[in-house]
This record gives sequence, C-alpha cells and structure tokens, in this order.
Amino acid sequence: MPPLFITFEGIDGSGKSTHLKRAAEWLAQHGVASRQTHEPGGTPLGDALRQLFLDHRWGALDGTVELLMLFASRRQHLLEVIEPALAAGEIVLCDRFTDSTCAYQGRGRGVPLELIDQVDLVATGRRRPDRTLLFDLPAAAARARRHGDRPGDPGGQRAVPGGRRGRADRLDAEDLAFYERVRQGFLEQAEREPRRFRIVESGGDPARTASQVRAALEDLLPAGVVRA
Amino acid sequence: MPPLFITFEGIDGSGKSTHLKRAAEWLAQHGVASRQTHEPGGTPLGDALRQLFLDHRWGALDGTVELLMLFASRRQHLLEVIEPALAAGEIVLCDRFTDSTCAYQGRGRGVPLELIDQVDLVATGRRRPDRTLLFDLPAAAARARRHGDRPGDPGGQRAVPGGRRGRADRLDAEDLAFYERVRQGFLEQAEREPRRFRIVESGGDPARTASQVRAALEDLLPAGVVRA
Repeated sequence: MPPLFITFEGIDGSGKSTHLKRAAEWLAQHGVASRQTHEPGGTPLGDALRQLFLDHRWGALDGTVELLMLFASRRQHLLEVIEPALAAGEIVLCDRFTDSTCAYQGRGRGVPLELIDQVDLVATGRRRPDRTLLFDLPAAAARARRHGDRPGDPGGQRAVPGGRRGRADRLDAEDLAFYERVRQGFLEQAEREPRRFRIVESGGDPARTASQVRAALEDLLPAGVVRA
Repeated sequence: MPPLFITFEGIDGSGKSTHLKRAAEWLAQHGVASRQTHEPGGTPLGDALRQLFLDHRWGALDGTVELLMLFASRRQHLLEVIEPALAAGEIVLCDRFTDSTCAYQGRGRGVPLELIDQVDLVATGRRRPDRTLLFDLPAAAARARRHGDRPGDPGGQRAVPGGRRGRADRLDAEDLAFYERVRQGFLEQAEREPRRFRIVESGGDPARTASQVRAALEDLLPAGVVRA
C-alpha cells in the first residue's frame, strides 16, 4: 500500500467523525490498516491548544487569533504524527485539516483567504492531503443532528454517540448563518480543487453516505484491495 | 501626555522586568501614570498560552510552532490591552514584544526572520513600539542572576525577587550558547533600528542601569514633566 493522507471535512454535525471511524473499519476488513487522528489536536500540545480554543472564557475570539492557534496545533500535528506516519507507509485518516480553517476562520469569521494562505505557507508549506472527503448537508440539518432534535426525540439526546462533543463548547453558540457560510466556504474550496475533493451527501440515509465514502476512497487503493 | 508604547527587551535574567517596575514608579513620582503589561501573556487567553508555551511536557518545541503560539498571544494582547490603552491616551510599558520573538525563535531557534516577518504582518500588521529598551549583558552573567549564583550566596537564592520565575520552566533548560545567540539577535535588531532602540547596560550596578533607563525615556516625555 502506498502511504495516503486523507482528510474528512465538513461543518459540525456533518457526520464526518462517525464516517471516518466506519471508513477505518471498512479498510481494516480488507486488511488495510490506517491511523485515525483529528484536528485541532491530535498531539498532547495540540489537545491542550484545542481546549483553549474551545474554552468559553474568551467569548468571541478574533478570527486571526484563532487562525494562529489552529496552525500552531496543525504544525505540531504534522511534525509529530502525520508526516512520521506517512513516512512509515501508513494511511492517515484525519478529521479536519487546513480546509476547516479556510471555511471556519475564512468564510465564517471573515479572515481573508490570502492571509490564511500566508500563515499556511509558514506553518505547513501549504501541505495538502491526497484526498479530501467533504460531508455536505444544510446547516439546519447539521444543527438538528448536533442537538439530537429528531422527530419523536424531544429529549434532545445526542444523535452521534461516542463523539467528542460531550458538552457545549464555544462554537456551539454560533448561529445558523455562521454555519451556512462555513458550508459555502467548504463547497467553494471543493470547486477550486476538484481533483482532491469528493463531496459526500450526508444529510440523508447514513448507509447511503457510507457507500459514497467507500466510492470516494476505492480508486486510491491498489486494484484488488477492495471489492465493492 | 501623548500615548506611548514602550517595550523592555533582553534575555532572561537581564533585569528588564525589575527595571520596568522601577520605571513605572519613577514615572508615577512625576505624576505620569502608566500601564504595565507583559508577554507572552498579558490577557487571560495569553496567560493560558504562556502556560502551554513554558510547559515541560512538550520537550523541545519546533521554533515555528513556538512562533505561532507567541503571535496568537501577541495579537490577543494588542487587541485586548495595548491598543485600547493607547487609544485611551495611556503610556504602556510592555515586558517583551515582537523583538523577543525575532531574538529567541529567530536567532535562538533558527527560524528565518523573513518567516517571522510574514507571521508578524498577519498577526500585528508589523506593529512597532515607540521605543524599545534593550537590557544587555553577557549570557553567563544573566544566568548567574537567574540562578542567584552570587559570590557568598551558595544557597542559590533568586537574585531577582518578585519576578514571575518561581520555578524552572522549559526555557531554563537551554544552554549558554542559546542565550548568547539570543543576545546577539537583540543587538542586531537594535543596530537595524537605532532610532527605536536604546541599549541599557545591565550587567553592573543596578542604580547605574536605572539611570540609563530614565535617560532612555526622558526625551519621549514633554519638556518639564521630569527633571533629572
């Protein structure tokens, strides 16, 4: 197997984290091991930065302050986890990477993309994944999934068990318009780099989404490794 | 009084923090109020980033990771403390600013200055103080002061009481050659911007250093505010 760097992107509640785990299981069933990791975080320093990033105490942070913290975490993640794993021939499945920063801090918070690009150049040398799966759905549907607001589920149980969203964090306070801007930001990036991106519709049946995920990964794997 | 942004720079153990407090007292004696602050930190988020920055757990951090964390703290400090204080007409005395990053991460860790400049442009718009006092002394003398290694003081008592260096942090582990590089980095910056910098000799008698500090500030103040 060649080393592969694959990222899972989308707004909060898009199902990307759940489908990342499923993709890893599917690969494992075909004898393909993978390393699962996530941002912000993925390293001890990065996890500490993530805690600060999500902390309620700061209120609304300036987008460029967020940007610098996120790229500090990202560079540490690249140096400590991602590049060593790829150098050892592993397949890396990463929940969020630079595309999230462009979508959230760029489109969401209004930080100019040229400015993000400058910091990206310093922090990662403009490192891009081999493939990026974008989990797309309307912001309202993602929020309903985050909050567990399903018909017949008035108790507001979380719809995504096992996720890392045990309690409300700083971003949970953002409104729908923010998340819809972020969604559009992701879609614009996918349009700019169609060879790298695969858009996965994640608003409907999870089984159908999972099948789109497999289709988006199959052509990366050597022939004969997986049979649909 | 016009608002003034004045920074105190130098290697650890250079006496800058002690002399910043003295300068504030001296100004106060002449009826000039000032705001004292410091980096990294100076805000709740910045202080949390400072804790991470100095934490032993990460071992030796990559210079660019440090750079990104420091500029995140710096931008928050500018937005939350420094610029509002200056806008309100205050005199800001700041312990460390961007020159420390150029000296420590640039000359100390080898991060190219062009790269620091790119992040500086994004984070602060290349904000420069009105005046910078550089407390200069040999790295060995600064270390002796940090550790309290004075003749007749074998107990290793701290020579600078009241400082924020209650316990050894991650940077204390650096060797003398590192601190000598950092010192040279500061001196090179002073050479590049002679109008902004004043070099204060801080290896000798503290009273003489204090007098140099006053001389380095007097010409900034309106005539008649202070009498030597």
